[in-house]
Amino acid sequence: MSADPPGPPPRRGVAANAQLALLLEVTGTPKPGNVDRHHDYDDLRFEHFVAGGVGAFPGLKRAADGDRVGRAFERAVAGMSEQRAGNTQFGALLVLTPLVRAAADGDLSPAGATAVVDETTVTDAADFYRAFEHVDVAVDDPPEGLEPLDVRRGADAVPTLEARDLTLRDVMAESADVDGIAAEYVGGFERSFAAGARLRELDGPVPDRAARVFLELLADEPDTFVATQHDRKTAERTTERAAAALAGETDPATLADELVAEGVNPGTTADLTAAALFVALQEGLDV
Amino acid sequence: MSADPPGPPPRRGVAANAQLALLLEVTGTPKPGNVDRHHDYDDLRFEHFVAGGVGAFPGLKRAADGDRVGRAFERAVAGMSEQRAGNTQFGALLVLTPLVRAAADGDLSPAGATAVVDETTVTDAADFYRAFEHVDVAVDDPPEGLEPLDVRRGADAVPTLEARDLTLRDVMAESADVDGIAAEYVGGFERSFAAGARLRELDGPVPDRAARVFLELLADEPDTFVATQHDRKTAERTTERAAAALAGETDPATLADELVAEGVNPGTTADLTAAALFVALQEGLDV
Repeated sequence: MSADPPGPPPRRGVAANAQLALLLEVTGTPKPGNVDRHHDYDDLRFEHFVAGGVGAFPGLKRAADGDRVGRAFERAVAGMSEQRAGNTQFGALLVLTPLVRAAADGDLSPAGATAVVDETTVTDAADFYRAFEHVDVAVDDPPEGLEPLDVRRGADAVPTLEARDLTLRDVMAESADVDGIAAEYVGGFERSFAAGARLRELDGPVPDRAARVFLELLADEPDTFVATQHDRKTAERTTERAAAALAGETDPATLADELVAEGVNPGTTADLTAAALFVALQEGLDV
Repeated sequence: MSADPPGPPPRRGVAANAQLALLLEVTGTPKPGNVDRHHDYDDLRFEHFVAGGVGAFPGLKRAADGDRVGRAFERAVAGMSEQRAGNTQFGALLVLTPLVRAAADGDLSPAGATAVVDETTVTDAADFYRAFEHVDVAVDDPPEGLEPLDVRRGADAVPTLEARDLTLRDVMAESADVDGIAAEYVGGFERSFAAGARLRELDGPVPDRAARVFLELLADEPDTFVATQHDRKTAERTTERAAAALAGETDPATLADELVAEGVNPGTTADLTAAALFVALQEGLDV
């Protein structure tokens, strides 16, 4: 007749921390140009990110449980896309997946994450391409000669991947100079880890720290998603405006309203903020 | 070498819909007197609800997977409490747990949910009492003669439950006239289902519908949590103010600011809104 003892609160698992990172990222405000607790775009609203974060969990859980990184990512994207707005956090899932695996393997460090990336295969690359079939992701035209590997081809690119024996790491290396997430893959997730440490160093509510770290990342390097959606000059100008906000010359809240109005969406910087939140949560950041 | 086919997006499961309901509930704004997308209390903020919703998932999953209702609830509360603010959505989890089980059993209806409640045992009642050990929940003093069953006694009340052979349904029946969640347990979850249907009938973004339904529920019946924290008169006056907001005589946003300032928190109405969101999501409401 006796009930089991209730036991202690279950510590959040690795996949749950990744989900929480996604949700805290979109909660932090102002994150100029991005959907956040106080900003929506007309067709891309806060609740789409919430539903996307809920839907991504089974894919993240696969990464934590040892399924291959590409497959876990593709499943996370499939689940994320189960809401009306399409792509909410594709890039965040891409940068989170190897970090989740590294954490589950017990080595959430630049070396541990690099080891995960180095072990990816052609099959992971194929999964990555298939993930583009679930959502529209804004990307540039591929460089000359790489048209067969345009990500917009989705699964149609898989025979070329196989013929050229390209792993997920190889694919990332190809675009590391124009894509901030790919750069993380081949550079030991340097900015994710640095921003994660910064989150723990700051004071105050976690979403406020996330907004601060977002602004610091944006002021530090041009956002590659802005460069893709607009052009390099717009991305550089956005970084200058973020630096001005950081220096107190303009109000971050004003910059947020301006960038949303201009449709300038530093999405890669938001993705890195999610990665940083995950690292910090794993290292003990309390919410 | 070939990757598995990606397959269709995985439809959100029952537990994921319950988690999404918790998160959408706190997103809808204005929900006068409650934490929502645009309102915080000093020590109880939006991010605590987000972390609570993430942490509650394993308990909700237990309910969906067939663990007993009391145990699933107690585990959901344990996970919810893994953030600094303590109690965020205790009542929402209490009303959701039998609904999740009914949905998993394939009969999310007043009869199906009532069957789940009717099958609860003394062990479920013991789990319910143990859940109070994870968080502080504002409750009234028990009626005369029921002091041994004061929920604040937690596990210490279990021998009395066993001696009196009280099931979770019995415990709920005892407080149905002073607690809106307990009333749902013994009344076929009438308000939850009606509000769920209303959510599907309304137009517009789901959080806006949730805010509207919250106000309708509050205007319809005094909130029992307000009656507990303050008194019956305050609860009745709050219902009159909600009715005035609904009639367009006052702005719901103004009422929201006023109630937060007064510390009048219609938490039971928010809990019922979460239950309604779950019902609507299960019945096909798109986000």
